[in-house]
Amino acid sequence: MEKKFAELKALVAEIHDLKAALALLEWDQQVYLPAGAENGRAAQIETLSGVIHAKSTAAKLGRLIETLEPADYPEDSTERALLARLRRDFAKKNKVPAKLVSQLARTTAEAHAAWVRARQAADYTLFAPHLARIVELKRRYAELFAPSASIYDPLLDDYEPGMTAAELDRIFEPLRREQAGLGRQLADRPADDAFLHQKFNGASQLAFSREVVKKLGYDFKRGRLDLTVHPFTTSFGLSDVRITTAVHAELPVSCLLSTVHECGHALYEQGIDPALDRTPLAEGASYAFHESQSRLWENQVARSLPFWRFFYPAFQKRFPKQLGDVSLERFYRAVNRVVPSEIRTEADEATYNLHIMLRYELELGLLEGRIPASELAGHWNAKMQEYLGVTPRSDTVGVLQDIHWSLGDFGYFPTYALGNLIGAEIWNAACRTVPGLEEELARGNFRVLLEFLRRRVHCHGAKYEPPVLLEKITGRRSIDSEQFLTYLKGKYSAL
Amino acid sequence: MEKKFAELKALVAEIHDLKAALALLEWDQQVYLPAGAENGRAAQIETLSGVIHAKSTAAKLGRLIETLEPADYPEDSTERALLARLRRDFAKKNKVPAKLVSQLARTTAEAHAAWVRARQAADYTLFAPHLARIVELKRRYAELFAPSASIYDPLLDDYEPGMTAAELDRIFEPLRREQAGLGRQLADRPADDAFLHQKFNGASQLAFSREVVKKLGYDFKRGRLDLTVHPFTTSFGLSDVRITTAVHAELPVSCLLSTVHECGHALYEQGIDPALDRTPLAEGASYAFHESQSRLWENQVARSLPFWRFFYPAFQKRFPKQLGDVSLERFYRAVNRVVPSEIRTEADEATYNLHIMLRYELELGLLEGRIPASELAGHWNAKMQEYLGVTPRSDTVGVLQDIHWSLGDFGYFPTYALGNLIGAEIWNAACRTVPGLEEELARGNFRVLLEFLRRRVHCHGAKYEPPVLLEKITGRRSIDSEQFLTYLKGKYSAL
Repeated sequence: MEKKFAELKALVAEIHDLKAALALLEWDQQVYLPAGAENGRAAQIETLSGVIHAKSTAAKLGRLIETLEPADYPEDSTERALLARLRRDFAKKNKVPAKLVSQLARTTAEAHAAWVRARQAADYTLFAPHLARIVELKRRYAELFAPSASIYDPLLDDYEPGMTAAELDRIFEPLRREQAGLGRQLADRPADDAFLHQKFNGASQLAFSREVVKKLGYDFKRGRLDLTVHPFTTSFGLSDVRITTAVHAELPVSCLLSTVHECGHALYEQGIDPALDRTPLAEGASYAFHESQSRLWENQVARSLPFWRFFYPAFQKRFPKQLGDVSLERFYRAVNRVVPSEIRTEADEATYNLHIMLRYELELGLLEGRIPASELAGHWNAKMQEYLGVTPRSDTVGVLQDIHWSLGDFGYFPTYALGNLIGAEIWNAACRTVPGLEEELARGNFRVLLEFLRRRVHCHGAKYEPPVLLEKITGRRSIDSEQFLTYLKGKYSAL
Repeated sequence: MEKKFAELKALVAEIHDLKAALALLEWDQQVYLPAGAENGRAAQIETLSGVIHAKSTAAKLGRLIETLEPADYPEDSTERALLARLRRDFAKKNKVPAKLVSQLARTTAEAHAAWVRARQAADYTLFAPHLARIVELKRRYAELFAPSASIYDPLLDDYEPGMTAAELDRIFEPLRREQAGLGRQLADRPADDAFLHQKFNGASQLAFSREVVKKLGYDFKRGRLDLTVHPFTTSFGLSDVRITTAVHAELPVSCLLSTVHECGHALYEQGIDPALDRTPLAEGASYAFHESQSRLWENQVARSLPFWRFFYPAFQKRFPKQLGDVSLERFYRAVNRVVPSEIRTEADEATYNLHIMLRYELELGLLEGRIPASELAGHWNAKMQEYLGVTPRSDTVGVLQDIHWSLGDFGYFPTYALGNLIGAEIWNAACRTVPGLEEELARGNFRVLLEFLRRRVHCHGAKYEPPVLLEKITGRRSIDSEQFLTYLKGKYSAL
């Protein structure tokens, strides 16, 4: 049994290494690829993906997974968790015919190119037929896992194991109601943020962001920070977790918040138990869990008053012309101003989840056949008006703003909102556990928060199913909107 | 037959893509890898190398290569050249037992680490036993291809197809004699280069180097220039050929010459016929041919008076304090000062080949068992004194200076000298073909040279065996030292 387990681990490590190579091809594509090398890189990514798929579905791997019984290993052991995870992944992957995999790959490649063109032309109709084909293929994919209560469930499960549409509906119902009200109410407050609407030198913004994430605990010996267009985090194993960011001279805190967001993802991966490295357990417990870490550092930390108590003097010093006579409190209020916007990634805490719920409802409508792809833009604009009181100026900043659908990523968006909710619950647990947490942060002692997260969240990687991990941290298995809403109302009533 | 050929090309393209991914892992390792990620990266490289080896020796590939007969395709066709090349590579690879491959990999990995330690301690004896093991394995490798006139021939053939030790001896004999004499004679000339021994700002050196390679024709849309410790060129397909360089404030032209050297390699790859991409023909004809291109641009161009006629004003402008009152002619003479040195990579044109011939003779002695690895340092120092009149201050700048032996690269060094000789022959062909070539270069018209090389050398990639290609360019199949020596004597007598 031990020999077979070692054999299995070697196969799994091989797949892990190949995935790391694939992630490097993709990181480089977003960060340093010469303009003329796009086609060559696409071919390399396709080839390596094919090799990984073949190895991940190989009969030899399947036989080992079948032979080794999780229950033969101690209840809380890594071996048992790893076998369970491998069984689950292998069974899912093997249900999907190779033909559907390649159809999806080809269709999304074409759809992504069409999405880029449609954005340039600000014309959703150029993308609509491609989206229709993707929806059809995703539906066929989901049907492979029938019966499921909702066609959405198997898709959701790829990102959030065990989560269902019914559960989402339960969680989102009060969230939608309360947040739509809060957003409208807060948007009417008078603004005092003209000082933010100036030019802020990009290099200084980047240097400040670098200084901040270092202080938060990001380990530059096991990672890097580079510039890109759409910031992301990637990992080539636990000793190489890289973050990227973007700088906009006219958005003075955008680079910082985005860097801290990615830093939150990276702190998660850098904190996973090295014993799990080169296995599928060396990652976050789920997409929502991953997002809970990025959002917690971005919102509960980097948009908080204690954070700015510590960092504002340094920020002010970098921009004396723009901020020399702006007090900490004015700055803090301006950074947290609520402005319902057409763009999800620029949304404030009070409105962000509305963007997500809108997408979730549209995805569900598409998959259930209630919304034809050809009519999606109209539905989008109507819902934007209903939830946020905003009508997008064009499809580019409306229905075409996100890359996800062009890549076939259906079921992904809800994890962003779930991440916010889990983040608030973990934040509360931290406040209960770490004495004087906010005072420590205001003194620049971010280590206490990181140590709490390392111990309670990060180190476990994907060893536990999301509800089990949530219970270990917070004492409750199910996700609710209550703690998040309390946090939000508390924050904005104090503002 | 057509279907089988398409099948073969698909397999070959897959291997090519995986090699590109491997090259990216290695490029990143030298350029951007975080310090703590070395072990993880080593594992990724080992895994992907294993996958590539398995695919390159797979029975399926072998059957296709055997089935398809090169002679069934037209004489000068790409198909025929590709099949011949694949047959050759496959036969060679399949002669090597997997056990020897992994022994070599493990031994060189350990040897490389020992080499790093030995350099730090300036103590060759720490490396000697590892070198002894490598020599033993390389000997076993060479014996797989018995009978060969020399044990050296099969090793040489990996870098320079068809080249032999007997041929090398013929070529090197007059070169050794003439160059040793020339080196001694030129080294005695009085020096006027104190102005070069100042600090030259690194960023300005790099910016100038970038400007130069752009002007020489390096296509930044299909490549990049990054900083590293030991400059190299790498390619992830013909649309992504990257160069790297290093900057030393106290060596004002080192960055430039090294960047132009790598640019020469890159211009070769960027100039290969795109129809050959994703096949093993999409590379240089041989290591010596590759080196001929880097050395031609570095020496015949960037160390020439016409080059500096054009670029010196711009260089002077970047360094007015150091060069403001230094005339072009003084600068040119100083850049070409002959100083026999202990370090190969810093050698001038008059002494460089002596460093190579010394290494070749020692490699031969090791492999033929005439020189025990334990006594190599003594032989090294004696030959350095004999050829260059120099005794290394320590093993670090003596026998331990090059990485090659620690990686098991025996048979590689001679291609550097052959590259110099081929470079001179191609340069002469260019001078015969392009009217007023040197005047054009002095006017900054580097395009005429690049176009000659594109048409006569680059576009063919590895379609032709090296002697065939050489004949197409110069009219003669064999390499000789004569044209190189004439060039060298001409250059230094004018100085």
